[in-house]
Amino acid sequence: MLALGIDPGTAICGYGLVEMKGNRLYAVDFGVITTSPELRAEARLEIIFDGVNNLIKKYQPSIMGVEQLFFNKNVTTAIAVGQARGVVLLAAAQNNIPCCEFTPLQVKQAVVGYGKATKQQVIYMAQHILNIPYRPQPDDAADALAIAICTLHTSNINKLWSRMV
Amino acid sequence: MLALGIDPGTAICGYGLVEMKGNRLYAVDFGVITTSPELRAEARLEIIFDGVNNLIKKYQPSIMGVEQLFFNKNVTTAIAVGQARGVVLLAAAQNNIPCCEFTPLQVKQAVVGYGKATKQQVIYMAQHILNIPYRPQPDDAADALAIAICTLHTSNINKLWSRMV
Repeated sequence: MLALGIDPGTAICGYGLVEMKGNRLYAVDFGVITTSPELRAEARLEIIFDGVNNLIKKYQPSIMGVEQLFFNKNVTTAIAVGQARGVVLLAAAQNNIPCCEFTPLQVKQAVVGYGKATKQQVIYMAQHILNIPYRPQPDDAADALAIAICTLHTSNINKLWSRMV
Repeated sequence: MLALGIDPGTAICGYGLVEMKGNRLYAVDFGVITTSPELRAEARLEIIFDGVNNLIKKYQPSIMGVEQLFFNKNVTTAIAVGQARGVVLLAAAQNNIPCCEFTPLQVKQAVVGYGKATKQQVIYMAQHILNIPYRPQPDDAADALAIAICTLHTSNINKLWSRMV
């Protein structure tokens, strides 16, 4: 099972593809889609949409995970990230890929086992869970890997639950 | 010149198409794209995107206007409207239609001539500028007509300016 995790943003949109084979998780690809602040909002959103869409076409993930926004940031930032998130969710819908949303707390809980873990702890754990020989960079790509791990954990738990019930 | 005005929202997305012939403005079409709250966020965004995309294909407007968000609303609302706005801007970009953004103050200024006009005054003026025999409903559609009027006024002023400079 292959999961695509997305850390949405207008300037930098992180992505991480994680494959689950048995109980092991492997990083398939990760990186960022960047857009120039000199471009108009709609051009930046098109770049993000095309980037995510291309990743979906190339890797055909069976599930997607997208981080929910931080609610303590200001409203202007929230709108910009909301717009980026909108086109990411649209790419999922157009490709019929189920899409889960996770709060930063849920991602930390899934990756570190502790909801108040620092960003650095999350990146460290993502690196070691996926057995990547170096620290995945930039942080947005590492965050996206963590979101993909969280997505697989959650869908796995849901599968186990459905067998038990 | 035909302008498509959009009042973005996840539950109700208003649209208004206004044609400028000489100095007169005519309403070509207006209405709302609605989505059920029972649907998942990505499915709702796909309905909005498809709806706006269909309007663009059908009427081929030469310019689009989208309302900027209210900044006094809460962050959760801002994210939801931001997502809807993201897919509207994407539809504009994919169809190569220039897209302007206006604050509610700019729309009121353009339609009523007074930035602190009430919603009812804006709707009343939009109805009379466009010579519509009845009050355009729902309010989201009327707002979208007002945004289209604002878009045409602004692009007209810009044209006049570019001739003077």
